[in-house]
Amino acid sequence: MKNLEAVAGNGLLDRRAFLRGGAALAAAMTGYTLAGPASAEPLADDPWSRAPGTNVPAYGVPSRFEKSVVRTLSNPNGEPRTQHGRTPHHLLQGTYTPNGLHFVISHAGDADIDPEKHRLVIHGLVKRPLLFTLDALARYPMVSRMTFVECGGNSAPLFSREPIQASVQALHGLASCAEWTGVALSALLEETGVDPKAKWLVAEGADAPALSRSVPLAKALDDAMIALYQNGERLMPGNGYPMRLLLPGWEGNMNVKWLRRLKLVEAPAMSYYESRTYAPILPNGKAYQFYFLQEVKSFITHPSPGLMLKAPGFYEISGIAYSGNGRISKVMVSADGGQSWAQAALHEPVLSKAFTRFRVPWNWNGGPAVLQSRAWDEAGNVQPTRAQIIAVRGQAAKVPRVTAFPSQHYNGVTSWAISSAGAVSHVYA
Amino acid sequence: MKNLEAVAGNGLLDRRAFLRGGAALAAAMTGYTLAGPASAEPLADDPWSRAPGTNVPAYGVPSRFEKSVVRTLSNPNGEPRTQHGRTPHHLLQGTYTPNGLHFVISHAGDADIDPEKHRLVIHGLVKRPLLFTLDALARYPMVSRMTFVECGGNSAPLFSREPIQASVQALHGLASCAEWTGVALSALLEETGVDPKAKWLVAEGADAPALSRSVPLAKALDDAMIALYQNGERLMPGNGYPMRLLLPGWEGNMNVKWLRRLKLVEAPAMSYYESRTYAPILPNGKAYQFYFLQEVKSFITHPSPGLMLKAPGFYEISGIAYSGNGRISKVMVSADGGQSWAQAALHEPVLSKAFTRFRVPWNWNGGPAVLQSRAWDEAGNVQPTRAQIIAVRGQAAKVPRVTAFPSQHYNGVTSWAISSAGAVSHVYA
Repeated sequence: MKNLEAVAGNGLLDRRAFLRGGAALAAAMTGYTLAGPASAEPLADDPWSRAPGTNVPAYGVPSRFEKSVVRTLSNPNGEPRTQHGRTPHHLLQGTYTPNGLHFVISHAGDADIDPEKHRLVIHGLVKRPLLFTLDALARYPMVSRMTFVECGGNSAPLFSREPIQASVQALHGLASCAEWTGVALSALLEETGVDPKAKWLVAEGADAPALSRSVPLAKALDDAMIALYQNGERLMPGNGYPMRLLLPGWEGNMNVKWLRRLKLVEAPAMSYYESRTYAPILPNGKAYQFYFLQEVKSFITHPSPGLMLKAPGFYEISGIAYSGNGRISKVMVSADGGQSWAQAALHEPVLSKAFTRFRVPWNWNGGPAVLQSRAWDEAGNVQPTRAQIIAVRGQAAKVPRVTAFPSQHYNGVTSWAISSAGAVSHVYA
Repeated sequence: MKNLEAVAGNGLLDRRAFLRGGAALAAAMTGYTLAGPASAEPLADDPWSRAPGTNVPAYGVPSRFEKSVVRTLSNPNGEPRTQHGRTPHHLLQGTYTPNGLHFVISHAGDADIDPEKHRLVIHGLVKRPLLFTLDALARYPMVSRMTFVECGGNSAPLFSREPIQASVQALHGLASCAEWTGVALSALLEETGVDPKAKWLVAEGADAPALSRSVPLAKALDDAMIALYQNGERLMPGNGYPMRLLLPGWEGNMNVKWLRRLKLVEAPAMSYYESRTYAPILPNGKAYQFYFLQEVKSFITHPSPGLMLKAPGFYEISGIAYSGNGRISKVMVSADGGQSWAQAALHEPVLSKAFTRFRVPWNWNGGPAVLQSRAWDEAGNVQPTRAQIIAVRGQAAKVPRVTAFPSQHYNGVTSWAISSAGAVSHVYA
């Protein structure tokens, strides 16, 4: 029973323990508390086995018993301010965010666009300003890629001096991952031609605030996409229907939704979001501006606050890791607050700039534990501890708001404490 | 402009033509008919740019302008017979089927199961009969895999003597692909223990018909899964909520939904579906029974019937390929009814037993064309022509029904004719 031996403190097991022959180990650990004995009597029929079910709908939605698996809304009545919808990571599994639960931030609601009338214009420092309908874009070669989108303000509560007691949805729910399909922006720019003076482009949305961001031309020519489809179907209204700019691995706000215009220019426009919200002042007095990359990060979703451990024994610790720099190369997990670490298994295929599910088996002895995860990416970057990122960026005096300092690009470690009662809480460790 | 040269008859271009520098080629071919010139005037504001949009919902659904992107229903009023909901492949892109549009076949509606009360029992020729709640299953190690599910009767209309004029949704809409997450069945069987006499298991659903199928134990111990999540969220009601048997690459009907029981036995149960629906008589008098594998297959989704070509010039031909035997290794596309072939580009990563999107650039000269695709898998199997499969399985006297002979496991080539007017029709070629 070699695999039953812990490979790190407080009961973390080898990630390979369950690749083959693992369930017996779980059974050995738990004395069959996971499954119960089956009765020798024939199965009783439940009500749903005794009558026809509900009609197959034209468009399926989750069961009525899953009503709690929804985005949490910051402004459900649509008052004249920003609306946030956060992804319930603790209630999901795998690597994809289903479209109904992809996070949304909309500054004046979700634009309700008629796709027949919507146009995309590419102009400014180009040789041939062009106008694209959806029909025209449909004829270009399509590209697909799975990639995450993350708000620059995701995880901002962890800049707080005291750990805020909230779910992983509230703390990290402004990041999601989907398969996006559309037209490579480089292909469209090849058709317009690019004036050599152009160094940036300004992307503008068709929403009421006409949200705009400046994007370096190099990114536009690298892996940027005019995304038209999300997990196979047209973009969700809150994710930019009928088209958005997709900049894999870069700050969510730059992935301009309801895209209507790309203007090639010599210098950034210094628009609202790049000169205010995403330009906080650092402790050294400099502005944290034009820092586009969403850096390597991970957090544990199972267990996490709100999910109870009901009894000692076997559990699987799992979570999500991602990096705007490329593929995740390694995730380490600790059950003793960072004193010792076990390597997690990564779900294959590990894709560049996409969510990667990590898993590690754990034999919880029923005592206190502090769970942490820490990720590495293929570019050699390591997720900082909270202390490391606070040292550079500072710490909020109280609960931060999106516009408070510091509130952007937290990618440090998250720590969950497990009590002897099996409750999970947010701690700094 | 070497890449502009056709690599196969009737205008098929090299699949690499658009990896770099492709849009200019499209422009050269079309004389800028794809995009129009942009006006020098400032953009006019559409109505949605002049007022706040709609509120962010707790669970997102597609835009009201996408109401036609739905499953077609064979029995929308839930009369006491089978209900089919077919996936609109011609309106989707990428490789994943969004959950709302995954195909569904339900023989007595979608069972409306309370997950707190649902149980899975594994019994019969086991050492320890066990009973699993959803809470218990949640503690086991989880596995995720992207895989297709396809009804054995998908594509049955192609057994008809005359090509049926219908969309790719009507012809091939009983196949879909998702990322499924759950518990490996092998892990649960390790916990129950398996009596050496057991060679099959009978899987039974909790729906009113108690649909049951016999599954060889070897498949159960290979890659079978008790699936709990579909593209990240809990299974859709029509796809087996709260749990289904997943047998990657095998006939959809065997992937028993609303799973409540697995009984290990010595011999197959000869249940309704395996002894009637999926046991048609072949021309040689033998029964086509216990033939579980969904073999290598492909079809073109863009263009396809219902999608018009509006003018000569550049188009991308794309479609879906898959094989229950493993990865797709190659897809060839013809624009001249199979006289010549060009190799298609495959979307990476190519995953085993999953949808693979293929693409090939095409310069349509405005004349008649017949588009076909043909797929190979890594096991060396090649998708048969229609003539080849008809020679073995026979041909229906008239439009086949699910119970008509022959109606199962059509995996031959599909042909779309393009008229000079740009209309797409179904032909045998």
